[in-house]
Amino acid sequence: MRIISFEHAAQQRIGLKVGSQVIDLSVADPTLPQDLVSLLQSEQDLQSRLANIVDNAPEQAYLQLSDIQFRPLITRPGKIICIGRNYAAHAVEGGAKPPSYPEIFMRGAESLVAHQANIIRPTCSDKLDYEGEIAAIIGKKARHVKAEQGLNYIAGYSLFNDATVRDYQRKSSQWTIGKNFDDTGAFGPEFVSADELPLGVSGIQLQTRLNGQVMQDANTSDFIFPMASLIEILSECMTLLPGDVIITGTPAGVGYVRTPPVFMKPGDVIEIEAQGLGILSNTVVDEDHPLQ
Amino acid sequence: MRIISFEHAAQQRIGLKVGSQVIDLSVADPTLPQDLVSLLQSEQDLQSRLANIVDNAPEQAYLQLSDIQFRPLITRPGKIICIGRNYAAHAVEGGAKPPSYPEIFMRGAESLVAHQANIIRPTCSDKLDYEGEIAAIIGKKARHVKAEQGLNYIAGYSLFNDATVRDYQRKSSQWTIGKNFDDTGAFGPEFVSADELPLGVSGIQLQTRLNGQVMQDANTSDFIFPMASLIEILSECMTLLPGDVIITGTPAGVGYVRTPPVFMKPGDVIEIEAQGLGILSNTVVDEDHPLQ
Repeated sequence: MRIISFEHAAQQRIGLKVGSQVIDLSVADPTLPQDLVSLLQSEQDLQSRLANIVDNAPEQAYLQLSDIQFRPLITRPGKIICIGRNYAAHAVEGGAKPPSYPEIFMRGAESLVAHQANIIRPTCSDKLDYEGEIAAIIGKKARHVKAEQGLNYIAGYSLFNDATVRDYQRKSSQWTIGKNFDDTGAFGPEFVSADELPLGVSGIQLQTRLNGQVMQDANTSDFIFPMASLIEILSECMTLLPGDVIITGTPAGVGYVRTPPVFMKPGDVIEIEAQGLGILSNTVVDEDHPLQ
Repeated sequence: MRIISFEHAAQQRIGLKVGSQVIDLSVADPTLPQDLVSLLQSEQDLQSRLANIVDNAPEQAYLQLSDIQFRPLITRPGKIICIGRNYAAHAVEGGAKPPSYPEIFMRGAESLVAHQANIIRPTCSDKLDYEGEIAAIIGKKARHVKAEQGLNYIAGYSLFNDATVRDYQRKSSQWTIGKNFDDTGAFGPEFVSADELPLGVSGIQLQTRLNGQVMQDANTSDFIFPMASLIEILSECMTLLPGDVIITGTPAGVGYVRTPPVFMKPGDVIEIEAQGLGILSNTVVDEDHPLQ
């Protein structure tokens, strides 16, 4: 099951992705919730209902993927929880030892940006860096869940570019502000239900390309904290709710540690790709705001 | 104008606080939005409409404050942005130099707890510490706002207990997880519109009492980053929206730096008080969950 969020006729919609087409759920079944979080929260047997839609959707429910405007997969997640340094090689390239507990910070919804939309390089900095990541989307309420049960609480996965304004990340000990510039966190292109991917999204290749050049290339089997462990660690402390998003950390190869450093600039095309999750693609543009 | 969030007949409501009574807005004027964020977002001339309600509310709209159950002032703020080390003396007691840029992190909504509700000490830690703070509530969309205009974007203020699980705060370099345990961030008791307080909530005394003993006692005139500056700093990076909450940092006197350290334990009553903002009071209880 693959779901995308998109805008059509100035309305936010969700749809089932079938090949190069999308079935607009608002046309195919207006009785279903029309945003991904509400859909995940619904008590229905989604699997069979959505399969039925794929089999029986009327022709007018079909749109071409090339004709739609993507939205961030979830526009306003309840929580966007980000994991730092979850690949040993990336932790080491940043000068840190592999951690015994994950680095955890949060993003706000204003930082999100859609697949194919522009990532904004802010006027105040030229240190905008990419971070290709796997995103997990929570499917049911989780509290005090042990790792052995952790994967039962994940509805599916997507891709995320945790683009970071590096000098603001380092202005204090806390990284949050460098991770929360408007229109920096690309989220999409599609929700892929967990059953379509390897268990715990393990063993899949994740690649980041800047203008076609491979910058990050790693395998999720190198997670220091595998997906199931992250559910245990987080749910020990807080309740995870349907639609909450966990961004699982970025592998080695980010721009700021290179010699010379590489930062994204206007016109750059940045792509994140992972097996089974498609390609998340964005173009970088400069913020339209004078230097203050 | 003083607004509280409360629960009545299993419904979430807001009301105008008038002395020891509250005017239930759902009874006094059902045409108004019935949550604080929507009320702040509404384009109406709230000041005169709410003043009119105070003058003309029918008797059945009045409830006794002692009869209601408070809710977190805003149940699901869009963003809860926390400032660390905003009082020089507190920065120094934690071993840091006063910062040139604020420490910034976020809380999720699940960490919030209402006035008079129980703050939960988690099973996994006995290092639960208090942090009395002033909360500012954004009234209109703010981006790239200079400090001189910053206060125009704040609708009002309240109190916050940024209660922290200290050992989890220190498990990695990022504090977020120690600040996000369920039912630790007390928020209330009431929204006080900015016009009822000194400009920029400056020069007011903020006090934290643990079982009646004064633990923190400081003045907001000691802010390293005054309220207006915080709006400039944050809005340089991100869009602030109505209902977003800025927790402005805690003064000296937290428990973990004391000799011996003081942590909150079951039965403790923790109160935060500031001039014009009332008293935010909570009792600490142990989490009802076995050690894993």
